[in-house]
Amino acid sequence: MQLQLSTWPEVEAYLAKSKAILIPIGSTEQHGPNGLLGTDALCPEIIARRAGDQAGILVGPTFNVGQAQHHMAFPGTITLRASTMIAAMVDWTQSLTRHGFEKLYWLNGHGGNIATITAAFSEIYHGVTFDKHGHNQSALRCNLRNWWELPQVVDISRQLFPVGEGVHATPSEVSVTWFGYPEAVNQVEMSPRIAPSGPILDAEDYRRRFPDGRIGSDPSQASPAAGEKIVSAAVKAVIAEFKEFAAG
Amino acid sequence: MQLQLSTWPEVEAYLAKSKAILIPIGSTEQHGPNGLLGTDALCPEIIARRAGDQAGILVGPTFNVGQAQHHMAFPGTITLRASTMIAAMVDWTQSLTRHGFEKLYWLNGHGGNIATITAAFSEIYHGVTFDKHGHNQSALRCNLRNWWELPQVVDISRQLFPVGEGVHATPSEVSVTWFGYPEAVNQVEMSPRIAPSGPILDAEDYRRRFPDGRIGSDPSQASPAAGEKIVSAAVKAVIAEFKEFAAG
Amino acid sequence: MQLQLSTWPEVEAYLAKSKAILIPIGSTEQHGPNGLLGTDALCPEIIARRAGDQAGILVGPTFNVGQAQHHMAFPGTITLRASTMIAAMVDWTQSLTRHGFEKLYWLNGHGGNIATITAAFSEIYHGVTFDKHGHNQSALRCNLRNWWELPQVVDISRQLFPVGEGVHATPSEVSVTWFGYPEAVNQVEMSPRIAPSGPILDAEDYRRRFPDGRIGSDPSQASPAAGEKIVSAAVKAVIAEFKEFAAG
Amino acid sequence: MQLQLSTWPEVEAYLAKSKAILIPIGSTEQHGPNGLLGTDALCPEIIARRAGDQAGILVGPTFNVGQAQHHMAFPGTITLRASTMIAAMVDWTQSLTRHGFEKLYWLNGHGGNIATITAAFSEIYHGVTFDKHGHNQSALRCNLRNWWELPQVVDISRQLFPVGEGVHATPSEVSVTWFGYPEAVNQVEMSPRIAPSGPILDAEDYRRRFPDGRIGSDPSQASPAAGEKIVSAAVKAVIAEFKEFAAG
Amino acid sequence: MQLQLSTWPEVEAYLAKSKAILIPIGSTEQHGPNGLLGTDALCPEIIARRAGDQAGILVGPTFNVGQAQHHMAFPGTITLRASTMIAAMVDWTQSLTRHGFEKLYWLNGHGGNIATITAAFSEIYHGVTFDKHGHNQSALRCNLRNWWELPQVVDISRQLFPVGEGVHATPSEVSVTWFGYPEAVNQVEMSPRIAPSGPILDAEDYRRRFPDGRIGSDPSQASPAAGEKIVSAAVKAVIAEFKEFAAG
Amino acid sequence: MQLQLSTWPEVEAYLAKSKAILIPIGSTEQHGPNGLLGTDALCPEIIARRAGDQAGILVGPTFNVGQAQHHMAFPGTITLRASTMIAAMVDWTQSLTRHGFEKLYWLNGHGGNIATITAAFSEIYHGVTFDKHGHNQSALRCNLRNWWELPQVVDISRQLFPVGEGVHATPSEVSVTWFGYPEAVNQVEMSPRIAPSGPILDAEDYRRRFPDGRIGSDPSQASPAAGEKIVSAAVKAVIAEFKEFAAG
Repeated sequence: MQLQLSTWPEVEAYLAKSKAILIPIGSTEQHGPNGLLGTDALCPEIIARRAGDQAGILVGPTFNVGQAQHHMAFPGTITLRASTMIAAMVDWTQSLTRHGFEKLYWLNGHGGNIATITAAFSEIYHGVTFDKHGHNQSALRCNLRNWWELPQVVDISRQLFPVGEGVHATPSEVSVTWFGYPEAVNQVEMSPRIAPSGPILDAEDYRRRFPDGRIGSDPSQASPAAGEKIVSAAVKAVIAEFKEFAAG
Repeated sequence: MQLQLSTWPEVEAYLAKSKAILIPIGSTEQHGPNGLLGTDALCPEIIARRAGDQAGILVGPTFNVGQAQHHMAFPGTITLRASTMIAAMVDWTQSLTRHGFEKLYWLNGHGGNIATITAAFSEIYHGVTFDKHGHNQSALRCNLRNWWELPQVVDISRQLFPVGEGVHATPSEVSVTWFGYPEAVNQVEMSPRIAPSGPILDAEDYRRRFPDGRIGSDPSQASPAAGEKIVSAAVKAVIAEFKEFAAG
Repeated sequence: MQLQLSTWPEVEAYLAKSKAILIPIGSTEQHGPNGLLGTDALCPEIIARRAGDQAGILVGPTFNVGQAQHHMAFPGTITLRASTMIAAMVDWTQSLTRHGFEKLYWLNGHGGNIATITAAFSEIYHGVTFDKHGHNQSALRCNLRNWWELPQVVDISRQLFPVGEGVHATPSEVSVTWFGYPEAVNQVEMSPRIAPSGPILDAEDYRRRFPDGRIGSDPSQASPAAGEKIVSAAVKAVIAEFKEFAAG
Repeated sequence: MQLQLSTWPEVEAYLAKSKAILIPIGSTEQHGPNGLLGTDALCPEIIARRAGDQAGILVGPTFNVGQAQHHMAFPGTITLRASTMIAAMVDWTQSLTRHGFEKLYWLNGHGGNIATITAAFSEIYHGVTFDKHGHNQSALRCNLRNWWELPQVVDISRQLFPVGEGVHATPSEVSVTWFGYPEAVNQVEMSPRIAPSGPILDAEDYRRRFPDGRIGSDPSQASPAAGEKIVSAAVKAVIAEFKEFAAG
Repeated sequence: MQLQLSTWPEVEAYLAKSKAILIPIGSTEQHGPNGLLGTDALCPEIIARRAGDQAGILVGPTFNVGQAQHHMAFPGTITLRASTMIAAMVDWTQSLTRHGFEKLYWLNGHGGNIATITAAFSEIYHGVTFDKHGHNQSALRCNLRNWWELPQVVDISRQLFPVGEGVHATPSEVSVTWFGYPEAVNQVEMSPRIAPSGPILDAEDYRRRFPDGRIGSDPSQASPAAGEKIVSAAVKAVIAEFKEFAAG
Repeated sequence: MQLQLSTWPEVEAYLAKSKAILIPIGSTEQHGPNGLLGTDALCPEIIARRAGDQAGILVGPTFNVGQAQHHMAFPGTITLRASTMIAAMVDWTQSLTRHGFEKLYWLNGHGGNIATITAAFSEIYHGVTFDKHGHNQSALRCNLRNWWELPQVVDISRQLFPVGEGVHATPSEVSVTWFGYPEAVNQVEMSPRIAPSGPILDAEDYRRRFPDGRIGSDPSQASPAAGEKIVSAAVKAVIAEFKEFAAG
C-alpha cells in the first residue's frame, strides 16, 4: 500500500488499525560506470513497495535526495546540506505525527545517510516531542534500517558475490536496481575489475582515489536474477522487522 | 532520459551537449475521495518522463513533498515548512550548477507550491549566483511551469470537462494519474457531485469548507483515456517549451 | 489610527472592540527614472493611513523592505532573502497574536512580494498556530491584498492611463506617491515613451532588458491629481474589505 | 535626501560622491501612558531626515521593528527574535554594499537594540566581508550611534529635565515625537509622577515592576518646544559625526 | 561543586535545595604578547570553580568559545557567529530548565560577548518561556555578570595597576590566569610599554591599530600574586551576588 | 601545547611548522551512579593534553557539550540540537582554517556524537571549502577518532575488564576520569552489578530501560590505576595517528 497511490480516506482507515509507516530514504549520487544515479533511493523503494504490497504496510513517498557531498565530483550527484536534510526529516515527521502516526520505520539505501539520519532523529526527539514540561512524549519512535545490513541480505550477498562486493557501487545494489528496472541493465567492462579501497574524505579527494566511482567492488557481476533473490530476502526480513516494530 | 536511471558517465555526456535539466516538483496531499495523495507529484513526473524519453531531455528526481499546510487536516498529507522547501531547492540547485547545469526547468504539479517555488528562486538568485563583487552570474536560469496551465492542456481539459473541472482534485489531474497508474482507478460517488468553492485558508478551515477535500470539482468524470489525451498534449507542449528554454 | 502614533492604552482599548489590524507591506526598490525607491512601501502606507483615519482602523508600522532581488542591479534597491522575510513576518505575527489580534490584513504594494508573503502565511499557519495536539487554532487569519488589484483601482487606472500603465513603475503608483509627497514630483522625459515588456528573471538580466527600470509603462503621465483619485478609490475599497474581513 | 523619496539615478549620482549612508533603526514598543508606540523608531527618523535635508546625507528607510521582548506584556509592542533581526540587518547591509556603500551609520533609537545591533555587526563582519582567503575586506564600516547619548543631547536633556528624565518613556524622547507629530500631543497625569526604577528582566516581570510602562521618568514634562531644542542639537551633532565617519 | 565532576544523583540532590546554577562563559582569542588565548574563558572558570567549592554553588561547564570576530586577524582566535552563539545558549538553557533550573547566572569573561549574550537572553525569553497563551513563564531568570566589573575587582585592579590596566590583555586578567596556571607565566617586554587605545572595528583594522593585540594595557605588570588577590576578591563578590540572585 | 594556554605568537610559530590541530570533543551527560557528568568531555581532554605535552601537538579548547538528547531524563545532562552542533563545528573550523590550519583531528569522547560530527563534516566540506567554481579546496581534512576505539585501548580495556565493560558508563571511561581527577573517585555499589543492555531510543524510554543510567556496564571495577594504563596506551596511539594524519 503506497501512500502516494492511496486516497486520504484509505489512509484514515489504515490509521484506525496501525500507527506505523515505512519510509524509503536514499540518495541521488554516482554509482560507478554502470550503476544508476538513483541506486540508493531505488533499492529501498523497490524493497519497500513489495513489502507494502505483500503485507499491507503503508509506504510513504521516497526521500530521494540525501547526503552525498563526497560524491559531488561526479556529474549527476545531488546533495542536501546536513542541516537541510535534518529540517526536512523534521517536517515529514511532524506532518505524520499530526495524523497520528507514532512509528516511523525509515528504510535507508545509503551508508552516507546514516549519520545525518541519526542526527535528525535527535533533532526530532528534541523538537517534536518536547511538551511544555520538558518531557518527551513516549509515543513517537523512529527506526533506522539499512537494507544492505539485514542479516538475510548479508548472507545472500556473500553467497552471490563472495569476491568484489565492496562498499560502493556493489554488485548487490546494482542487481537490485536491474531487477527493478531491467531496461537499465548496462554491462560495462570494469578496469580494474575490483575497484580500489580506502578512506572516504571529501569530493575531489574521492574522485582522485576512486576515479570511476566504485570502492572495492566489481559490479560487472550484477544481474537482474541476483537482484530478485536479494529483494526477495530483503522483503521478507523487512516485513518481519516492521511488524515487530509496529507492535513493540 | 531519467537522471535516476542514468549513470554518471551518461550525465557527463549529456552535459557536453546540453546544460538544461527538467525537474518535476509536486506535493503529497489529499486529493478528495478518489484522488491519490501523490497526484501533484505524479502528474508532473508522468509528463516529464514521457517528455524525457521522447526528446532526450534529462529528467531529475521528483521533488515529491512540497507546501501543503492547508491540506494538513486530511490524513496522509505531508508538508514542508516554506523555509525548509527553500533550503532544499537551494541545495538541489547548488548541486546541479556545480556540475555545469545552467537551465533548470521546474515542472510543477501543485498550485500551493507556486509561491514557495517563486520565493526559492529569489533565494537561489540571491545566494547561489552572487560572486564576490556582488554581481549575479548570468548563466543560471530557473523556469517555473505549472503543467495544468499549459495552453494546450487548458484547451483539452475544457473540452473533456466543460463542467466540474474545479481547482482541487480536478478530473484532469485524476485522469492523468489513472493513465499513469491504471491500478489506482477508484470510482467513488461524489456528494455533492460538484464540490463547493471558496477561499483557501488554513488547514482546519479548509476541511470545514471542503469536507471531502475537493474544491469546485467533479472527479467522478475522470478516466484513464482522458488522462492519456491530456498527457499527450502536455508532453508535446513541455518538449517545445523546454527546448526553447534550453536554447534561449 | 496609526499604531506607531498610538499609546499602549489606546491599543488596549482598540483590542477591546476589534481583533483586526492592517499592516502595509512593501519594498524599497528602483521605480524607473522618476519613480521613488520607496514607491511600493509608500503606496500601501498612504492608502492605509487614510483608511485608518477615516474608519478607525488600526494601522501597524510599514514592513518597508521586501523581496527585491530582481531589482538589485539598480542602486538604492534593498532586498531581504525570502527566508529572512518569512522569519520577520512570523515574528510580527507572533507579537500581534500575543496581544490578542486574530485578523491580520496585509496591504501589499509590490508584486514581487506576493510569493514570499504567501509562503510566509504557510509558515505562520504551520508554526504559530500548531498546538501540542497538532491542531490549528482557528482564530488567526492572514489576508493578502495587493492594492493595485482592487477592482475599483483597476477601473480608475484604466480610465486615467488607458495606454502605458505597464507593470513596473506605472503611472498609477507614481501618481499615488506624488499625491502623498508632492515635493517628490519629478518630470523626466521617457525614452522610449513606453518601456519594453518581457519576462522578469534575475537582477542583471533585468537591467539588460529594462535599462531604465520600467516595464511596459509610461510614468511621464503621472500626476498628483491622478494619485488623489486613485487613493480615494483605494481607501474606500480597503475600508469595505477590511471591515468584512474583521467581521468574518 | 531620503532614499525612499529618491530615484535610482539620484542614488547613483550620490554614490559617485559618497559611499556613506545613514539608517535610522528603532523599535515599536510601549512608551508609557502618553508616549507613542513608535517613539524609538520615530526619534531617529525625525533627526535623521532633518540631518539628511540640511547636509545632503542619504537617509535609508527606517528599520522600524527591533528587539522589544521585554515590552511584550504591553499591547501594541512588536518584537523580532534576535536572530531574525541579525538576519535582516545582514540582508540590508549586503544589499547596500552591493551598490558600493562602504560606511553604514546606524542611528539607533532604542537601548534594547544595542546588544542585537552589536551582535549583528559581528555577523556582518564575519559573513559579508570574508573573502575566499579569509581576509576581511577593509572597506565596510558599521557605526552605531544612540541618538540620546550624543553629548549635545545629554546636555540639553539635563537642562530641560533635571528631574524625571529616567530611562524609558523619557520626557526627552516624548518631546521629540511631539515635535515631529504635534497631533500626537497627549497630556496624561502620571501616577506616581516619577516612575519606579529597577532592573529590566523579561516581559511579565517588567509589567509587574513598571505597571504603566515607564522607568524612572516623568514624561508629563514633555513638550513640542523641548523636542525642537533636542532635535536641533541632535541634528547638528549627527551631521558632524556622520561627516567625520564618511571621511574617515 | 562542578557539574562536570559531579554525578547525576548529586545534581538531583542539589536541585532539591537550589534551582540556581553558575555558568562561566568566555572566549578563545588573542590576549597580546604574553596573555593566553584562553584568558577570557579561564578567568571566569577560575573564579567560578573557587566560588563553587567555597559556597557549594553548582558550576556548569565553561562556554569556552564566544564572539571574537574582531580578533580573527591573530592566529589561534576562534569565534562563533552571533547567531550560532545564540542558538547554543538557547540549547544550554533549554536543557537546564528541563531539569528544573530556574536561575542561570552567567559569569562572563569577555567584553565582546556582552552584546551577543544579551541578545541571546532575549531569544531565550522569547522562545523558551513562551507558553501557548503567549505568556512568559516567570520562573526563568538569566543574569549576566562581567567578572571584571564587580566593584570589588575594580577597586583592587585600580590599586594594583593604577597605570596601564587598559581594556584588552589587561594586567588584571593576565594575573588571574597566571595565578590559575603558574606554568604559563611568560614575561615579555612590551613595546610600547602601554599599548595604544582606540575604537574596536573589524579584524584587520584591529590588527592595524593594535599590532600586538593589546589595547591600552601594560600586562608586563602582571603576576600570580596579583592574580591571587583579584581572584580572592572576585570569589567573595560572586558568592554574595549569586546567593542573592538564587534567593531573589 | 594547549591553545588556551598559549599566546598568539606561539600559535603563529606553531603554524610555521604544522597545519594540524587536535580538538577534544565530548558531551556533558549522565554517566551512571558514580560516573561524572563530564566524563565524555574529560576523557578526550585528559588524553589530548598529555599527547599535546609529550609530542608538541597543539590541542584546541574542548568542545564540551554535544549530542545528548537521549540522556535528557537525567539531571545535569546538557544537549545541543544537532543543527546547533553542526553550526558551531562549522564556525570553529572556519576560524581555524582562516589562520591556516588544514588538518583538524577531532578526538571524540561520546558515541552519541559520532553521527552529528559526521554530518557536520559533510556540512563543513560543503560550505567551507566550496570555491566559486564549485570545486572543493583540497587542503582541509577533518578526522574523527573515537578514543575508546583505538585498538590499543580496546586491548587494554579487555584485559582490565573482561566482564562488565558495557557501552555506557563503562569502567574504562570512569577509570580515565578518576585518573585525571582522583578527587572524584566515588565508589558506589551497583545494583544489579552489571547493568541491563538494550536499544537506545529517546530520553524517557532510556531512563525506563536503564534506571541508573548505565548500559551493560559494571563501573564499580573502575580505578585510577586502570585509568592510568588506559591513558598511557591512548596517548601513545593518538600521537602516532595524529602525526600520520598531519603528514598525510
